[in-house]
This record gives sequence, structure tokens and C-alpha cells, in this order.
Amino acid sequence: VIRLHRIGEALRSAGELIEDPPVERVDVDNALQRYSARKVVSPIDLPPRPKAVMDGYAVRHVDVEDASQASPAVLKILSGVVRPGADTCVRVGAEEAVRIETGGFIPEGADAVVPVEETEEMEGRLLVFSPVGRFANVSLPGEELRKGARILEKGARIRPWHVAALVACGYSRVDVFKLGAAVIATGDEFLKAGYFAPFTLQLVEGVLAEWGFELLKARILADDVDAIENCVRETLPQAYVTLVLGGSSMGSRDYSVKAVERLSPKYMVHGFALRPGKTACLAVKDGRIVMVMSGLPVAALAVLENVLRPLLEKVVGLELPRRTRVKARLARRVTVKAGLRGFVRVRVYRERGGLAAEPLMVGGSGSLGSLLEGNGFLIVPEDVEGFEEGEEVEVELHGRVG
Amino acid sequence: VIRLHRIGEALRSAGELIEDPPVERVDVDNALQRYSARKVVSPIDLPPRPKAVMDGYAVRHVDVEDASQASPAVLKILSGVVRPGADTCVRVGAEEAVRIETGGFIPEGADAVVPVEETEEMEGRLLVFSPVGRFANVSLPGEELRKGARILEKGARIRPWHVAALVACGYSRVDVFKLGAAVIATGDEFLKAGYFAPFTLQLVEGVLAEWGFELLKARILADDVDAIENCVRETLPQAYVTLVLGGSSMGSRDYSVKAVERLSPKYMVHGFALRPGKTACLAVKDGRIVMVMSGLPVAALAVLENVLRPLLEKVVGLELPRRTRVKARLARRVTVKAGLRGFVRVRVYRERGGLAAEPLMVGGSGSLGSLLEGNGFLIVPEDVEGFEEGEEVEVELHGRVG
Repeated sequence: VIRLHRIGEALRSAGELIEDPPVERVDVDNALQRYSARKVVSPIDLPPRPKAVMDGYAVRHVDVEDASQASPAVLKILSGVVRPGADTCVRVGAEEAVRIETGGFIPEGADAVVPVEETEEMEGRLLVFSPVGRFANVSLPGEELRKGARILEKGARIRPWHVAALVACGYSRVDVFKLGAAVIATGDEFLKAGYFAPFTLQLVEGVLAEWGFELLKARILADDVDAIENCVRETLPQAYVTLVLGGSSMGSRDYSVKAVERLSPKYMVHGFALRPGKTACLAVKDGRIVMVMSGLPVAALAVLENVLRPLLEKVVGLELPRRTRVKARLARRVTVKAGLRGFVRVRVYRERGGLAAEPLMVGGSGSLGSLLEGNGFLIVPEDVEGFEEGEEVEVELHGRVG
Repeated sequence: VIRLHRIGEALRSAGELIEDPPVERVDVDNALQRYSARKVVSPIDLPPRPKAVMDGYAVRHVDVEDASQASPAVLKILSGVVRPGADTCVRVGAEEAVRIETGGFIPEGADAVVPVEETEEMEGRLLVFSPVGRFANVSLPGEELRKGARILEKGARIRPWHVAALVACGYSRVDVFKLGAAVIATGDEFLKAGYFAPFTLQLVEGVLAEWGFELLKARILADDVDAIENCVRETLPQAYVTLVLGGSSMGSRDYSVKAVERLSPKYMVHGFALRPGKTACLAVKDGRIVMVMSGLPVAALAVLENVLRPLLEKVVGLELPRRTRVKARLARRVTVKAGLRGFVRVRVYRERGGLAAEPLMVGGSGSLGSLLEGNGFLIVPEDVEGFEEGEEVEVELHGRVG
């Protein structure tokens, strides 16, 4: 009897041995879509001083509090214009005003900005036709970004607004995780020129690239335990994640699993309660992740999504790109053997009153077509045998709903 | 009175003049996350011939239909092993079997594979302990990918499974849209060394990069209509989208809008019914998109998400990366002036029974902090004035729910 391991248990055990990825410092301009290695907070208030958010006149609000169309306030206009980025020594006194552009720092004495539309210049005097409150049209220190505000948590994916905030705070570099990955395809058949294209390699590399990994040059090896072992030993120092495709059989053709065994990993399981994808092997060596999985595309994807993704998200704490989840009515019954997690490809389509999901195949490790025809994944958890036709299920979309 | 344009109307008018982006042919290995310029279908059936999906023995299913544990079928074992990628001239006759590995093509005569677990070799004979149906453990031609099946639609974002399918079909190159983008920041203040960092530039460039655009070198210009006009003229041949930040004012400081006007675009609107972001300008010149928008970060993001995104998705037909949508209970009332679309930053958090969304700010063009503190966007459509506290709303998530 072959014991299949529950994913949750394996993740807990492996999780205790997996270390954080190495850290590298990169230019802020190259940080987009990387994962922050530390918490970063704002060292400053933005704006640093009160700032105009409209074009108009800086005034004391008490001087215009009774202004109206019929009886405008009349102020003396000081010379000059307060522009963003220009320091000014203007001081606004009682019944005085000075022109200010959006972004200019409010000069001393003033506490509000009257929008230009509410005013008229007449013979060197400013007529103000409506009152403004204290700090009206003024952005106060910290209003745009507060000193001490969190910019990044450890593990957060760096998005455009994070880059903008880092730049605004004057950071030019940021510490990110260095996520190297190596993918090794195995199979004698791939070494025969022009015969088979190991396309699962491209699939797996593509998923890792979308997750933000930097890929080492892919290797294609024969079904040879020594060669596979040596190759994994070589990639380990550079790769936080090493994935071997093929040679994961639960039977005799488990070259890659044997190769990983020879590394004497601190933790290793072979065989997951997952369909497709049950032949996967997960090992932790030197605090890093080594996996073997089927060379068949759908089985490999099932392992990436159901084993590697939660490992990176929940154990390592990386904020991987997530897919949109939608609720849909199941168009046909789906069952998976109890105790196994099912990774079902579905096609979600619009129907009156909402969305429906048509299951395409439960098994079908090799059915690339089910990924192209479908646009979503439905997970059948270990503790249910499936879902009934008509039941509402949650689907992760990976493509457009036609 | 300044007329603010409804987004939908502007998109329809602009849409008639916008042309498809230019097309370039790239290696399949560099196609990930690009947008397909054409429909691509599979030219072949995969597998091309019936293929074993288990390790076992290729047999005629009629020879084992009465097999049982107590009374196994006994077959003659032909010499050799059928391996994937190896052509074989074996022919399986009545009451014969030949070893076959996963992925090997089913030899002539055979029509099923008996898994190795259901067999025993004994004195050169094969004992089979259970029956298999016709084509059991066999993948038939087209089962993995059918000839004529759609691999890519025009405008589809190329994902890992598409790359895998292209490779599997023998395609080495693919036609994708060439999406150049130029971002030009304007503002005298940015030219004073060390004074202001035009961080909205990084925000906008980051969003475009995430959408798959290739960015030309950013330019920072003074508030000078001539300089801006010349710069846009220069970028137009290389950039499908040119965005100018700043100088979009509805008042006198509309340098960038004037510069775009001078290009004599076939279509141009200035002023959108959008808050924040109302000062945006959209033009179509030579079938390409030219926009001016506020230099304030939240206003710029509102324009990207509410004007440029639907233009690219619905008019050009690109499958941009989408955000997860969730339903949440609104923690506080939100109102936006009727007729305007509101782009509200919210913080989504877990509460008993589901999710809640706290609005952070309705206006706040400059509030970078509202993007960092928040994790989602709530759109208030033009035809509603807002949402009540406690109402269920749909939020687009851009960060993790804590």
C-alpha cells in the first residue's frame, strides 16, 4: 500500500525547515513585482509642510469669512507667485493675499487657499467672492503620507504605488528576496533530437516567472539518477526552488526521486493526496525547496498550484499574484476519490442570472487542451467527494469569461 | 461652465479612431505575458498517435476481458520495451503483450494498456489479474490537444499553458502586439535638482509595466508648451500610448493639454466626470493614444484605471491582468457628486461572517498614503450618488486582506 500524504501535513513539516530566501538590495527602479525582504516605513511626512492643492491665493481664512458674491472681501495682493519647488520668503499679513500654484508651500501667515475661480483681480486688489475654512485647499503635513506609515511588509509584492512611495521618501534602493529557480526536465525521449519537445518545462518556467522567480538556464537530462543528482547539487546554491520534471513515478521509474533521496534532505515526502499530481515529491535541503513532479503538464500545474503555491504563500510569506475568484453554478457533477484533493479544470461561462462552470476533466494529467479550453480551476478539497450539478462553487479564473 | 465628459461616451468616440497596435514576431520563449496579435489554432493532434498513460503492458483488451485474481489471463511477452520517443516495429498479436512505458506509442495490434500493478511475469509469461476496457490507459489522438483547437485569441495575454501549447505544436515564434509607451513628466519644480521627485512618474510607469507595456526612457520637462509638443511628436512613432503627467489643469496652467491640441489630433476631450482625475485629457493621433493627466498620484491612477484600462480592454481588446473582486460590507457611507464616477480607496478587512470595506478618501488626488493603507478600490458609478453604510459593495483588491 502506498501512503499518499495530505498536502497540509507536508507543508507544516516542511515549513519548519524552510529558511527565508536570500536577500539582495536592488535599485528602486528595478523593484517592481519583487518581494520586499523587510518592513519599510516612511521616514518623513508628506507633504513636509502645508501645501496648496488648488491654483489660487494664499490668505488668512479669517479675512474672507464674510465674503459673498454681493459683498466680496477685498485684499491686498503681495507681489510674486508661490510655485511648487520654490522657496519663498513671502509673509501673508492681515488682509493680504499672494498668488499660489498647486503644490506650492503655504507661506507664513496664510492658512487657506482661495481657488482662483472664486476671485477677481481689480486695480491691484483681490476680490474674494466666497469664504473658505481654515486649511481649505491645503494639504497638511503627513496628509499624503504619514511619517511612520507602513510602505511595505516583509513578503509584500512591490507594486507601482510602493515604488512611488519609496521614491517620494527618498529611498533609492530596497531589500528584496532573491528568488532563484532551476527547472530540470528529465526523460531519455527529450534527448532524441527533434522528437519530443519537453513543453511542460515551458509551462513550469512560465508559472515561476509569473510568480517573480529568476530562472537559471533550464537543463534537460536523461533518466539517469547520477546525472540528476549532480545537477540538483549544482543548482542548490543558486536556486531557492529546484524543480525536477519526470522520474517521479511511484513505481520503478523514479530516477529523480532517487536522486533527491541521495542528497539526504532533512525532510522528504513522495506521493501526495492530489489528483492529478499524486506522484510529486517535496524535499527540504539546506533550508531550500527541492521538488520532483510529473512531466505531464496538468499534473505539474496541479502540484505548482496546490503544493508549491501554499508553501510560498503561507510558509515563506510571499504575496504571490492571485487569481480572481468567482462563484459559479456547477453545470455537471464532479467527483474525486475521498481523501484526495481534486484539481479540476473548468470552463466558466455566462448564463442567465450569473455564471456557470463546466468541468472539463478530473484526471487528465496530460490534457493541455483542458487548460486552453478552460478558463478556471475548481479545487475539490480532501474532505469532500465532490460537488453536485447545480451546486454553487468557487472557481479561480485564469482566463477571460467569454 | 466646464463640461465634464462621461467616460463611456469618450471611449466610444475615441474607439472609432484608435488602430490596433503594431505587431512584432517574437520567440515563443519571450512571449510570456505579451498579447497575441492573432488567433492561433493547433495544427496537429496531440498525441499524434495512441499513447500509453501508465507503465504496463500493451495488449488486446479482448484477451484480458475475463481476467481475475483467481483466474488470470496468460499472455506471451514479446521482447523489448516500448519507450516514449522510440519508434517500434513490434506488432501485438492475439494473446500477446509487450512492455510499454508511460508516453510510449501503442504498438500496432494492441488497443489497451494493463497497468504493471495488475500483472506478474512468470516464466516468460505475463499473468494479468484484471480486465481492461478498449483504450484503457491510452491517450487517443487529439485527447491532449485537438487539431484546430484554439490556442490563442487575438488580444489574449500569453500565459504559461499557451507557451507550452505553442512549443508542443512546434511553433517557435508568435505574433504579438508591440506595446510601446512613453511617460513624460512635466513641471518646473522637477527640474530643480534634488527638490522634488516626480514619483507619480514611477507609479504610472509601474502600472504600464504590469500591463505589459515596454517603456521608452522617461522624460522630465519644464512647463513649456513647445517642449512638450516636440517631445510627444518624437515619442508618437514608437509609442502606442503616450502619457503626459501634469499641465492638465482646467484653468490656465494647461501646458500639456495645449501641446496635445497643437498635434491636431483626430479626437480630443479634456475634462472627465471622474473624481479624482477630472482634469484628464484623451486624444487620438495617428490611431494612437495620447493622454494628459494630473501629476498627483491618486488622480493619475484613477485615470489609468477608469479611462485607459477600459480603452485597452474594450476598444483594443487586450486581456489586461485583472484584480480579484470581492464583496464586502461598506463600513461607512460614501458619496460622490451625482454624474461623477468616484474612485474610492478602501481598506478591506475580515469581520465575522465576511469582509468589510472602510473607505479611506473620496477625493485626495495626492494621497499616496490611501493607496498604501488601503488594499482595494471601490468604483461609484456615474448614476449613483454613493453607497450606504452596511450596503454590500464590490471591491477590486490590489493588496492582501490582513
